[in-house]
Amino acid sequence: MQKIIELSTQSENGLYDITGEVAKIVAESKVQTGIVNVYAQGATAAIMIQENWDDSVQRDVITLLRRLIPSGIWEHDAQDNNGDAHLKAGIIGASETIPIINGRMGLSRWQNIFFCEFDGPRDNRTVAVTII
Amino acid sequence: MQKIIELSTQSENGLYDITGEVAKIVAESKVQTGIVNVYAQGATAAIMIQENWDDSVQRDVITLLRRLIPSGIWEHDAQDNNGDAHLKAGIIGASETIPIINGRMGLSRWQNIFFCEFDGPRDNRTVAVTII
Amino acid sequence: MQKIIELSTQSENGLYDITGEVAKIVAESKVQTGIVNVYAQGATAAIMIQENWDDSVQRDVITLLRRLIPSGIWEHDAQDNNGDAHLKAGIIGASETIPIINGRMGLSRWQNIFFCEFDGPRDNRTVAVTII
Repeated sequence: MQKIIELSTQSENGLYDITGEVAKIVAESKVQTGIVNVYAQGATAAIMIQENWDDSVQRDVITLLRRLIPSGIWEHDAQDNNGDAHLKAGIIGASETIPIINGRMGLSRWQNIFFCEFDGPRDNRTVAVTII
Repeated sequence: MQKIIELSTQSENGLYDITGEVAKIVAESKVQTGIVNVYAQGATAAIMIQENWDDSVQRDVITLLRRLIPSGIWEHDAQDNNGDAHLKAGIIGASETIPIINGRMGLSRWQNIFFCEFDGPRDNRTVAVTII
Repeated sequence: MQKIIELSTQSENGLYDITGEVAKIVAESKVQTGIVNVYAQGATAAIMIQENWDDSVQRDVITLLRRLIPSGIWEHDAQDNNGDAHLKAGIIGASETIPIINGRMGLSRWQNIFFCEFDGPRDNRTVAVTII
């Protein structure tokens, strides 16, 4: 089973919790034991498993990546002025693969699935969800 | 086939080699060609493929992450005082997916599978191993 | 279906686009809906999804990793003098898992698959490609 999640992003850098949408697709699949691959279709976006008790960790992720990967100093900036966005996406990675255990995702209590936007805002971001 | 590996960790930051446990589950599955997904159930833990000739690379990983992600300076520290642990986990990632080739994991000679603890010690860490 | 891609690398640090080879294996498999796992067999190598409009992002990746992970300051250097290569590989990760949608990889327009060499040049690098 495979579905595409569509989302729009409102800021240049931001994390968007898509756990609920992925969980719904897992439930529809009726798969009891397996894996779900969550893949961000975009070379300036990524998927991260992270806590969502409040917004603090999400903001810390953005602060950390800005600190490690400053904007405006990359060779690619001569083309698109978004070299930092590509580098952030490359470091975090385009996908996560999560086990399905007894029909539900095997996330721990504090693990949520985030779409990471590094070159927003964008109207049409897509995430491919594939269940095996 | 799916199994949970349980482990306890003894330090705040540490890498634990779980290659043997994963290899045993792969052997039990009798799968000849496929993949094995190794997933750390915890938002302050991660999975890394890394060399295990001796302890040096493991210590270097911890040194590097402490250098890139200092403790005590994050917004999330106001809640749990473990903002750095969440960030380390997010950068390394919760899972790795490894090919099964002729009934064994397709690791190279120097590749081992490590559970990365970033907020220990913990008595009850779990890793979900799923074979497809 | 599973195949091994073989490649040689020409520099100490470099990104090599293997999208075409992976796409060919996906086409041969005739799988319409599924996933493809791309796995670098080497503890000083990695797989990254990244743009390939020109060489700029590839060079920026190497520049960034040299900046974050300098060479020559790691405990492991006493053995092999390649501590930085192991750390770069651990941060980027040994594999990526990509959806197959309607018989083709679900990459976005600017996403390509790169083998990342961090301890080259090497004559015999291998990447395992597994389709489910």
